[in-house]
Amino acid sequence: MRTVNAYAATSATEPLVPITIERREVGPKDVLIEIAYAGICHSDIHTVRGEWGPITYPQVVGHEIVGFVREVGSAVTRHRVGDRVGVGCESGSCGECEQCLKGEEVYCLKGNLQTYNGLDPLDGSITQGGYSQAIVVDEDFVLKVPESLDLARVAPLLCAGVTLYSPLKHWKAGPGTKVAVIGMGGLGHVGVKLAHALGAEVTVLSRTLAKQQDGLDLGADHYYATEDPATFEKLAGAFDLILNTVSAGLDYSAYVDLLAVDGTLVILGAPTEPVQVDAMSLIASRRSIAGSANGGIPVTQEMLDFCAEHHILPETELIEASSINEAYERVLASDVRYRFVIDATTIA
Amino acid sequence: MRTVNAYAATSATEPLVPITIERREVGPKDVLIEIAYAGICHSDIHTVRGEWGPITYPQVVGHEIVGFVREVGSAVTRHRVGDRVGVGCESGSCGECEQCLKGEEVYCLKGNLQTYNGLDPLDGSITQGGYSQAIVVDEDFVLKVPESLDLARVAPLLCAGVTLYSPLKHWKAGPGTKVAVIGMGGLGHVGVKLAHALGAEVTVLSRTLAKQQDGLDLGADHYYATEDPATFEKLAGAFDLILNTVSAGLDYSAYVDLLAVDGTLVILGAPTEPVQVDAMSLIASRRSIAGSANGGIPVTQEMLDFCAEHHILPETELIEASSINEAYERVLASDVRYRFVIDATTIA
Repeated sequence: MRTVNAYAATSATEPLVPITIERREVGPKDVLIEIAYAGICHSDIHTVRGEWGPITYPQVVGHEIVGFVREVGSAVTRHRVGDRVGVGCESGSCGECEQCLKGEEVYCLKGNLQTYNGLDPLDGSITQGGYSQAIVVDEDFVLKVPESLDLARVAPLLCAGVTLYSPLKHWKAGPGTKVAVIGMGGLGHVGVKLAHALGAEVTVLSRTLAKQQDGLDLGADHYYATEDPATFEKLAGAFDLILNTVSAGLDYSAYVDLLAVDGTLVILGAPTEPVQVDAMSLIASRRSIAGSANGGIPVTQEMLDFCAEHHILPETELIEASSINEAYERVLASDVRYRFVIDATTIA
Repeated sequence: MRTVNAYAATSATEPLVPITIERREVGPKDVLIEIAYAGICHSDIHTVRGEWGPITYPQVVGHEIVGFVREVGSAVTRHRVGDRVGVGCESGSCGECEQCLKGEEVYCLKGNLQTYNGLDPLDGSITQGGYSQAIVVDEDFVLKVPESLDLARVAPLLCAGVTLYSPLKHWKAGPGTKVAVIGMGGLGHVGVKLAHALGAEVTVLSRTLAKQQDGLDLGADHYYATEDPATFEKLAGAFDLILNTVSAGLDYSAYVDLLAVDGTLVILGAPTEPVQVDAMSLIASRRSIAGSANGGIPVTQEMLDFCAEHHILPETELIEASSINEAYERVLASDVRYRFVIDATTIA
């Protein structure tokens, strides 16, 4: 075991505080990563505040992790000391089920191991995430970060990036397809960049036009305010694919009506209320509503390589660890353009 | 114009009665069909009773029509006098939009012409359907009925058949896929036969086991009662495709949980209440809920040819026109195995 510094939640209601946690010894297939940067994801906030169910405290969150390999186990073949690497939402899976064999570890039929707040089958401990100085991870769940990507900005790709890239690929976004992204935030702004780079015609559907110039600058072809009812009239039947990054309740029927024949609306942010939609709107145009989680290891690596090839990075604001609590409040107020990244050298 | 006998609804609440209606002259692209048999679809009942919105009376319903060509227009090339033919839910469409050009006339972007209760753009009249002696239809919406299919039983394929066949093909049911059919009625029993013939492993999900032997005889591999909560535990994650033929409100979340990763639940019967489903159940396994209408002309013809090749016919009960009202009551009581067909020679 080794002791590392971290920032942890100690209850659902108190601010995160510096603590120390133990990392396991590096096993034969493990990689020890010195964390350089960790992104702040809205999921982190939901989790520490118990909004997705009760958790065990103290809890270190963070599943957008990049850094350097500092030690490798005796059986490690995929990574070397000094490599630039990343870790996302999952750090383990059964490795044997149909989904794992297809490289869809995120959909592991036996339930995968979440990078934080997961029950580690190795020792029964609760996994602790990226708001820390170092982490020990099975090499199969460690991604290679291409040299050309600025390490200070790349972390959010490990969750936000693949959460958008995976459905864009699965539902075949590309030249000739019309994609809408609901929400211009941490997830949505990466979706705009990725969909644009894939060759799709991209529309942002945001509550207001406040971030319109940003959206167009990032690659959107069109930008509409959903607070304006005319938007829904004008765009009826317009999209092959709509990616919903907004977890707050939506009038799903209104958005389904924006789908073309055979179009799909994909839910990425998990709303707490049930999704409610008019069946006739689905039937009359063979439309679908789907959900999608982040992505397996192969598609995550593909996404990182795609981002390197297309010079895609999230828009980030770098903060010191002491500002995490303030950053949380700003995330909740949508006051960030567009993702916070913690400089892990300030976790001391 | 020519006058033909028919059975019509004259109000939302009174029984259907014999009347006469006018059919248009056979135009250059028209086919005059002497109707031999017409199926009774649940949609007919919803329509005449105003349950899908107010309609104009008198209204002759029926969109499962088979018979013989008795006259063809000067420009008709696809059909000849004496041919065995069929007509389904649609009798016209714009012919120019992206969907029509793909042969998906059922999803015509300008709105297709329903075989009954549709506003005919030719003369502004309301179309009148199959419970009649004859009908005049654009040749492009007339299907060829293979000789090997028993004409007295084939009519329900024109709606029920293609409504099941189209999603089975669209979502790629076949060897190695697991398909569930919710509801063992007019639609469901045809779905069992078709899915089985396509090579899928077929499960019926019916409220009770009352029709279990029928289901197994028709080709189902498994049959479960949904009134038994154990069914939902046992079948969690089991199906690639679930076809819902039941229009009454369902606990959609419970059925979505029966889908495998990447599985799709397709709604075929139109519920009046909104569909409500837990988003996490969609997200965690990349599942979809979709809707599907009947099918375009090419897939309808493909279905008829497939049924001829695989000796598939609906299970039917042949009735005289004077029994239509009684048959409606029996449909509503689920007291039919499994589809009523009217002998159109009794419409006098």
